Amino acid sequence: MNSQRCYEKKHPDHKTIVKVGECHFGSPHIEVISGPCSVESFEQLYEVALTLKKLGCHCIRGGAFKPRTSPYSFQGLGETALQILDTIREQMGLAVITEIMSQEQIQQAEAFVDCYQVGSRNMQNFELLKSLGKQDKPVLLKRGLSATLEEFLMAAEYILSEGNEQVILCERGIRSFDPATRNVLDLAAVAKLKELTHLPIIVDPSHATGQRSLVPPTALAAVAVGADGLMIETHPNPDHSISDAEQAISLETLESLLPKIDAVAQAIGREEIIKEEAVLIGV
Amino acid sequence: MNSQRCYEKKHPDHKTIVKVGECHFGSPHIEVISGPCSVESFEQLYEVALTLKKLGCHCIRGGAFKPRTSPYSFQGLGETALQILDTIREQMGLAVITEIMSQEQIQQAEAFVDCYQVGSRNMQNFELLKSLGKQDKPVLLKRGLSATLEEFLMAAEYILSEGNEQVILCERGIRSFDPATRNVLDLAAVAKLKELTHLPIIVDPSHATGQRSLVPPTALAAVAVGADGLMIETHPNPDHSISDAEQAISLETLESLLPKIDAVAQAIGREEIIKEEAVLIGV
Amino acid sequence: MNSQRCYEKKHPDHKTIVKVGECHFGSPHIEVISGPCSVESFEQLYEVALTLKKLGCHCIRGGAFKPRTSPYSFQGLGETALQILDTIREQMGLAVITEIMSQEQIQQAEAFVDCYQVGSRNMQNFELLKSLGKQDKPVLLKRGLSATLEEFLMAAEYILSEGNEQVILCERGIRSFDPATRNVLDLAAVAKLKELTHLPIIVDPSHATGQRSLVPPTALAAVAVGADGLMIETHPNPDHSISDAEQAISLETLESLLPKIDAVAQAIGREEIIKEEAVLIGV
Amino acid sequence: MNSQRCYEKKHPDHKTIVKVGECHFGSPHIEVISGPCSVESFEQLYEVALTLKKLGCHCIRGGAFKPRTSPYSFQGLGETALQILDTIREQMGLAVITEIMSQEQIQQAEAFVDCYQVGSRNMQNFELLKSLGKQDKPVLLKRGLSATLEEFLMAAEYILSEGNEQVILCERGIRSFDPATRNVLDLAAVAKLKELTHLPIIVDPSHATGQRSLVPPTALAAVAVGADGLMIETHPNPDHSISDAEQAISLETLESLLPKIDAVAQAIGREEIIKEEAVLIGV
Repeated sequence: MNSQRCYEKKHPDHKTIVKVGECHFGSPHIEVISGPCSVESFEQLYEVALTLKKLGCHCIRGGAFKPRTSPYSFQGLGETALQILDTIREQMGLAVITEIMSQEQIQQAEAFVDCYQVGSRNMQNFELLKSLGKQDKPVLLKRGLSATLEEFLMAAEYILSEGNEQVILCERGIRSFDPATRNVLDLAAVAKLKELTHLPIIVDPSHATGQRSLVPPTALAAVAVGADGLMIETHPNPDHSISDAEQAISLETLESLLPKIDAVAQAIGREEIIKEEAVLIGV
Repeated sequence: MNSQRCYEKKHPDHKTIVKVGECHFGSPHIEVISGPCSVESFEQLYEVALTLKKLGCHCIRGGAFKPRTSPYSFQGLGETALQILDTIREQMGLAVITEIMSQEQIQQAEAFVDCYQVGSRNMQNFELLKSLGKQDKPVLLKRGLSATLEEFLMAAEYILSEGNEQVILCERGIRSFDPATRNVLDLAAVAKLKELTHLPIIVDPSHATGQRSLVPPTALAAVAVGADGLMIETHPNPDHSISDAEQAISLETLESLLPKIDAVAQAIGREEIIKEEAVLIGV
Repeated sequence: MNSQRCYEKKHPDHKTIVKVGECHFGSPHIEVISGPCSVESFEQLYEVALTLKKLGCHCIRGGAFKPRTSPYSFQGLGETALQILDTIREQMGLAVITEIMSQEQIQQAEAFVDCYQVGSRNMQNFELLKSLGKQDKPVLLKRGLSATLEEFLMAAEYILSEGNEQVILCERGIRSFDPATRNVLDLAAVAKLKELTHLPIIVDPSHATGQRSLVPPTALAAVAVGADGLMIETHPNPDHSISDAEQAISLETLESLLPKIDAVAQAIGREEIIKEEAVLIGV
Repeated sequence: MNSQRCYEKKHPDHKTIVKVGECHFGSPHIEVISGPCSVESFEQLYEVALTLKKLGCHCIRGGAFKPRTSPYSFQGLGETALQILDTIREQMGLAVITEIMSQEQIQQAEAFVDCYQVGSRNMQNFELLKSLGKQDKPVLLKRGLSATLEEFLMAAEYILSEGNEQVILCERGIRSFDPATRNVLDLAAVAKLKELTHLPIIVDPSHATGQRSLVPPTALAAVAVGADGLMIETHPNPDHSISDAEQAISLETLESLLPKIDAVAQAIGREEIIKEEAVLIGV
């Protein structure tokens, strides 16, 4: 039996829109998720949130549980961070997305967040994926550092096949040989994924490049190649970021970047590309 | 503060011996773990166990929970497999090692196994590593598909720093560009790891090469480079293996390989290399 | 002595414009080089040339000497191809670019071409680079399949340090693990190179992706990230291309792509980005 | 027509022995080529040569023309180095191998050397390969940094198909992501190549690892996996080596390594493996 996979398109224009708060991933609009690598304090997150509101962004990210190479590095504020995220969510009306790394953390985060993020290191943590397949919140699934597109889509399939259709894919750079950039941003993969699946695909230029100055140009390239959204690390004071300081851009840089993102989206005729056939889920 | 990591050698000859049943990983003896990719039936495992006993191997592996790229592939016999493993363990006196992918599976497997295996995909599943750090059984930690040695050792540190010192490292091939072999077996990494850590290091030539005919020569090379042991997939009838059929060797091939392994170990003067300074843990 | 390299910027806005016929690589205009992988016949090249003229492109590419993995594959028409290129050049007023692989081929091509191309496989053919450093024609230098940016720039330095300043860099994909695309197009490298060097940088989306349908989106992404030009394989009848048939786009596709390229260039404010400080060479 | 390639085995035991001076690559004996990265002086090379003679090695290597990433790095003594190599060859009766990078260098080196070496960067310098195919001296062909085995063998085919059957393949590490070693030594590739071709295959553990301390264990592993020989960088005073100082081992280390190499060769029953079917060429 050669049954179709859930991630496959049923017809060439098949496109899913995943709703997270007021964001519609997969719609003609380029959704920009932004926020700090780690939630550090209410003040920090509030300052980011104010800017996002002003700029018309509807989704904030912030790490509560941080997967770190070393057990001795800052591991995130955990529960405290979740509560800060929740307050921002309530007060500002922003949708909240945060990374979870275990079934236990899903339960901890459930009441506080609008979308779960699965990081690269857990892309093939199949038990976690199966658990997420049973949740009724959207999942942002990041590509593993050395995952083929086949493996990436099959990881999504673990979630979809359990019944949760709200999956957003995220390209965030793959591991390669050149120390000139942190990872290699694989934008052709975005174009290829759009052929292979109806799921929305966003790009994280921050983790992909690991360098502040490279974030704006690669963000624009991501839009030009057809990404449905971006996830960009920002910090009110990037140099003082507790984690990933080199790649966080300032709120001013984000502000100057957004009009260019819109301009590029318009240049490629995005409204016309994304057709009426899109199916909205997660309302 | 620049405090020493748990995995680091305290002096050049510092070497840990991790005991799993009658196996002493890190001792002068090359320990060979063998068995099928998946536990398929009692008969299958019994046949393998009989051969291992005859050949003087003390540790059998067999998958109960299988991490598979596709959710539709065979996922292992689970609980049933654990019970088969336990019976073999009781009847044959072999130590049992099996892969676990979640905290829940640790609990399920606890009563039945002698050593937990963490697969490549979960090398940076930090919540799992922390849980294993609180167990009192040895952990076989496989290198991630694109993990640097620094990341590999830091993953071990997650276990060690929680108090469990019984960690065996396993090189099993890294992802690369050439489809000629499934992965690229990184044997220089074994030599390098021996400089960087006191932990025992074994090699899995089966997953590294993905081809039956390449297992014996790479197993011998692993011994020559200084590995403390091998993990080799065997099957009574390799062509009928449910998973990873192309890489499992027959019991006859294993039988003919073992004397060569001993010969190479002797040729490199292994007894003399592994000094008296070794510290036995896990008794 | 820590003397500055020729490829390094002397001040942040330092930018070189390399002139090839009427093309100005490094100027605000996105220059598009196009043409077939191999020159197959006068008719084939003439048809491409007609379209390029109509579309306002000034530079045609076509392989005379083809570097092929197998000695038994079509190796190019050689001298015959050079003469076809020369006729097109004379009749149509297009600048001609072709790959050379040896000092002998430089001499053969000299009278017929406007720009020499060095392919990925020869990026570190240092004797060839030194010879090109003594020529007075521009050189298009493609990045090697696994070249770091440091190595890429140092390869350019071999040409520059011999006195030939007319070097155009070309990102064309690097080798990686995923068979989903032929190579991985490294667009962040383009942004990074623009920080490191004053030399113009173009992108070849055809060799990078190896798939016709992926060429337009990645071409647009290349423009968005800041590339100074594109090299795109076209064929009057792509399916009948003797070499690289899967990646050549039709002339119709090229025609529909060019306005989008202009739109994206405008969207990122390219005219304003490329400042007056640019130094024109090769006039 | 699906004609057989020259590199393919005509029957399973088909094995070619390539003779370089008194060395027989592909015979049961593990041939060890050694010498400095660059020829620096007569005294330096003489000291190495004396040791090689004493140890029973018959082949000395030394760079006259050095391919260097930077045009400003030491490029080798050129003609002077060739004359030093020739004097050593005459006085000591050692076969001489040196790298050439162009047709011109082939001619320069012809009178002075017994075997040409093609470096990794030139593995797909097809014009060079074709020229070597017309010479009557053996060629040592190193695998490209990111060459698949298919590409490696096809590069050999360029030489073989022109009539020169004296090709020795050399695995020397491939490019990968981990800075822990300079490259990744791909020993499974050696085992795979032995299945695919009758040509002799040697291993260069020096360039593969880039670290002195890793050379002996990986050299032994290379023998265990079935390599027909080794190419090991030595220097009378490694710390003062002009190029590649970190990877050159001392003559004393070489002396202590050779008996272990013999022991491992014996342990894997090398004499019995290499059968009588071997065809000697290059006498």
